[in-house]
Amino acid sequence: MKSVAREGLREVTEMRTHDAGMLRREHAGSEVRLAGFVQRRRDLGGVIFIDLRDRSGIAQLVFRQDISAPSLELADRLRSEYVVCVTGRVVVREAHAINPKIATGEIEVEVTALEILNAAKTPPFLLEDGIDVDEMVRLRYRYLDLRRPEMQRTFRLRHQVMQLVRQFLDARQFIEVETPMLTRSTPEGARDYLVPSRVHPGEFYALPQSPQLFKQLLMVGGFERYFQIVRCFRDEDLRADRQPEFTQIDIETSFLTQAELMSMMESMVAHMVQETLGVTVSLPFQRIPYQEAMARFGSDKPDLRFGMELCDVAPVVKNASFKVFADVLAKGGEVKALVAPGCGSFSRKEIDDLGKFAARYRAKGLAWMVVEETGVRSAIAKFFTEEELSAIVAHTGAKVGDLILFIADQKKVVADALGALRSHLGKQLGLIDESVLAFAWITDFPLVSYDEEASRFVAEHHPFTMPRVEDVPLLDTDPGRVRAQAYDMVLNGYEIGGGSMRIYQRDVQEKMFQTLGFTMEDARSQFGFLLDAFEYGTPPHGGIAFGLDRIIMILAGQSSLRDVIAFPKTASGTDVMVMAPSPVEKKQLETLHLELALETEAAQK
Amino acid sequence: MKSVAREGLREVTEMRTHDAGMLRREHAGSEVRLAGFVQRRRDLGGVIFIDLRDRSGIAQLVFRQDISAPSLELADRLRSEYVVCVTGRVVVREAHAINPKIATGEIEVEVTALEILNAAKTPPFLLEDGIDVDEMVRLRYRYLDLRRPEMQRTFRLRHQVMQLVRQFLDARQFIEVETPMLTRSTPEGARDYLVPSRVHPGEFYALPQSPQLFKQLLMVGGFERYFQIVRCFRDEDLRADRQPEFTQIDIETSFLTQAELMSMMESMVAHMVQETLGVTVSLPFQRIPYQEAMARFGSDKPDLRFGMELCDVAPVVKNASFKVFADVLAKGGEVKALVAPGCGSFSRKEIDDLGKFAARYRAKGLAWMVVEETGVRSAIAKFFTEEELSAIVAHTGAKVGDLILFIADQKKVVADALGALRSHLGKQLGLIDESVLAFAWITDFPLVSYDEEASRFVAEHHPFTMPRVEDVPLLDTDPGRVRAQAYDMVLNGYEIGGGSMRIYQRDVQEKMFQTLGFTMEDARSQFGFLLDAFEYGTPPHGGIAFGLDRIIMILAGQSSLRDVIAFPKTASGTDVMVMAPSPVEKKQLETLHLELALETEAAQK
Repeated sequence: MKSVAREGLREVTEMRTHDAGMLRREHAGSEVRLAGFVQRRRDLGGVIFIDLRDRSGIAQLVFRQDISAPSLELADRLRSEYVVCVTGRVVVREAHAINPKIATGEIEVEVTALEILNAAKTPPFLLEDGIDVDEMVRLRYRYLDLRRPEMQRTFRLRHQVMQLVRQFLDARQFIEVETPMLTRSTPEGARDYLVPSRVHPGEFYALPQSPQLFKQLLMVGGFERYFQIVRCFRDEDLRADRQPEFTQIDIETSFLTQAELMSMMESMVAHMVQETLGVTVSLPFQRIPYQEAMARFGSDKPDLRFGMELCDVAPVVKNASFKVFADVLAKGGEVKALVAPGCGSFSRKEIDDLGKFAARYRAKGLAWMVVEETGVRSAIAKFFTEEELSAIVAHTGAKVGDLILFIADQKKVVADALGALRSHLGKQLGLIDESVLAFAWITDFPLVSYDEEASRFVAEHHPFTMPRVEDVPLLDTDPGRVRAQAYDMVLNGYEIGGGSMRIYQRDVQEKMFQTLGFTMEDARSQFGFLLDAFEYGTPPHGGIAFGLDRIIMILAGQSSLRDVIAFPKTASGTDVMVMAPSPVEKKQLETLHLELALETEAAQK
Repeated sequence: MKSVAREGLREVTEMRTHDAGMLRREHAGSEVRLAGFVQRRRDLGGVIFIDLRDRSGIAQLVFRQDISAPSLELADRLRSEYVVCVTGRVVVREAHAINPKIATGEIEVEVTALEILNAAKTPPFLLEDGIDVDEMVRLRYRYLDLRRPEMQRTFRLRHQVMQLVRQFLDARQFIEVETPMLTRSTPEGARDYLVPSRVHPGEFYALPQSPQLFKQLLMVGGFERYFQIVRCFRDEDLRADRQPEFTQIDIETSFLTQAELMSMMESMVAHMVQETLGVTVSLPFQRIPYQEAMARFGSDKPDLRFGMELCDVAPVVKNASFKVFADVLAKGGEVKALVAPGCGSFSRKEIDDLGKFAARYRAKGLAWMVVEETGVRSAIAKFFTEEELSAIVAHTGAKVGDLILFIADQKKVVADALGALRSHLGKQLGLIDESVLAFAWITDFPLVSYDEEASRFVAEHHPFTMPRVEDVPLLDTDPGRVRAQAYDMVLNGYEIGGGSMRIYQRDVQEKMFQTLGFTMEDARSQFGFLLDAFEYGTPPHGGIAFGLDRIIMILAGQSSLRDVIAFPKTASGTDVMVMAPSPVEKKQLETLHLELALETEAAQK
């Protein structure tokens, strides 16, 4: 190792012969060169011990008066996070000094030469797992946060998942094709991020919300099996679990049936889980039609790690004298119940809190009954006969000590509120086995839904989704009842992927646009190229897109997408490390043929 | 196969049991189901032959009166590019019908059932290789252009290269980390594409020109070995070989020396070439310092497939009485020559054309001499003695019949003009063996160069490039002479990758910013986070970025980047298929706090 004229500035020669974390008893006697960060320093009676950390793990360095003499003074200056390069000899530790907790615990490295490659200030927080630090501080010093072992593990997992997906698809003749990032703004769905053009004054590119049209055009182009792990963008109001840019595993196939595609995709996900977590998932995943999922779980992304299914109590309450239930049913609404096991002991306040929780989902009221040895206790018990109460208890399957919760409302409110209550209670009551990965497919989504505000039908998935063949006649009479050839993959209460078979014929696509209230002129101006493409021999095709960030979040056991994205944005879309977005020079805007239109002059630069 | 209620709209059942191009003699007797495009149809005395094309190749379908009866009428309606699904039996062709030119030439499929999945209009151009079609038409119908075999091959090659690179790096403990696309505008280098923020009025994200800062921060974050195949953006005036968005194989490492990194990278490229083209490249690549490359080839990306090196003739002309040469040398310029073998027979017009060519590179004149049996023929011969002429011929190594070309000018003009002449003549004279892949590293680039317009030094690579240690003192006295720890990989006259070791200490980085004329305030406001990061223990690090598009272009034998990008932009940055960029609604701009500032009202929407 060459010495340096100027500390830390060196024409570098080889800095490392071994990874620190890989040293074992069999290396004893070897001369090694290691490089990495100082994890900690201890000084025991003139002997200095350093835990040296590199990406592979930790090795203990020891500086002794005799052999390390030339470096001892330098070693005394080492502090946490200093970057060093050392030469030394691997020795087996004395029996009492062996540390079985670390992989290199049987050895240490007696240092003969030390070079400080870089010094370090004291980090603003401890670089270890389980820290309780304001997330803004972690994000501002992201380059330090990333040194923490759990972050290193998360991004290695993310890397591994990406490679596994690619290998799986490559082995099945999929090819990865890159689609444009600078593309065209489309009116449907979420807001686009726009990119002004310098060369074409007054015109804009849009960043893709997904490569949907391009992947369909690749099928028209005869590629048959396409994938891409691709960045997508949505300028939405951000919630805790959204990011303005996110990564999609994007897939499209030709000449495969929906069943063939779903089967291949669940194998891919099972393979990913097997190889990363060592968990074997049984195949095929259960298929649950959308209507069934909504009926049983009040959700199209049910958490299947626990039961507590919704129960339609209309048959046992419709003839009772409780007017609230009867009225709702008479108006075409629903009355459904949820049995909270063992919650008969809930206080009035606890039950009221559940009512407030349900109100967030627009439920006007939450009725309840407690099943006791002696009968049913409830504020509404008086509106029912003993026989009716027994029938309700029997119908819901509630047992003594259970709490039955009722919501009577429009179908959607009942599903949303009871579905949310189910998830809430599932967590609160500890019904969820965190070690389980509960996968399922939700199928047969509605093709369109009526948007009251826009006074028209809007696509539930996107306007290129194929209806189920037997439902096509309904497009003319009752579009809301048409089922789509669309499917979501769900895992533990999250949607992790969604896809559909696509319309591949121009006349069907035109009919779909009509259903959505597009004039043919609108359709042509937005999607003319796709309608054109459909005239030149488009194969039957369909695909899916998985949310990579969400998948990694679940597999890594994290609760925030920000913990699985290397440089994430905050909830206001800000990168607090580089400080983006930021004001730009006026002349940059001039070049782009733009002026700011700010409400206050003061905000202008 | 289920029959359809409505032609082409079907609840799809399995469409394919075999890939058409994979059928062989051993499949004879099997019942198969195939799906794909009609390549062509021939009708021979009531027997219809169809070439069915799918991604794997072509198989011949035959419809005979007897066995194909129910489908015969439908088969008669087939035209090129129709999409079909057929059931039939593989049979061995009669001996006279065997076609050795195609992989499936020994068999054909006797069709028993045919379904037309989709019809097709006649494509606007032939979907085959070697077509001579206006590129605008190809781009407008890109989804058809992509069906051509050479396009399919190119994108399969591109896919293969991407997977090979990832596997190579994965095996060497690199991990793939995704860096942000919505980031901060920086003032150096090419123009950024800006993305207005809706949430932060008057502020903008920028699309990355490269993930440079983020990859360095990943090294600060302890990842040690990072890679990403990543989209980058430059809003430059586009030339034939530029695209506004392009793909980079982006790599960064810690604790490796420049030599170690270069060695690993050339192995990666050699592996890529071996696996895709079956070409063995010998390692290590030759290393040519920048100054030497400029001196010998007049280029920092020399085409090494042929010789024809530049020759410095100053030693043999400096004392001659030819004033033009002497004056240039006296003023510190250069006089260099290029020998064009066998070009002594060039006409005056041919030589004049070379002079015009050189003038494009700002050369004020191109002198020449022809070596003949009897001596030197030249308009400037009279300014030299016989001895001087002989010395010139001997010094340049020219032989009888050769043409010697001279440029006397400032160093940079001489290099540019003679370098360009060398490439031009190399191609014109057929000196280039197209089957050769000539790799090299160019090293020791200048760290900075003086920008007359800006009256300051600017970074040649980028401001984070490490100077060579022995040249550091020159930063204070003669920055233009400082060599950088920077290296480019060149192939056949193209730069395919470029990288450097990075400055990793805050004080060196600050010194570099000073050299570039940044005030510390500028530096802090632009790169404060990086300067901060350098204080918390930054390892020595360095990396490289390869231009994937360029590499694929060379490996695929294409001459335009547009032929290796699935959906490229034209020279004006337009996607002529989807028509992007495009005007957007006024309310979209309002949401983004922007107004158009167009020169003419008429241009406004």
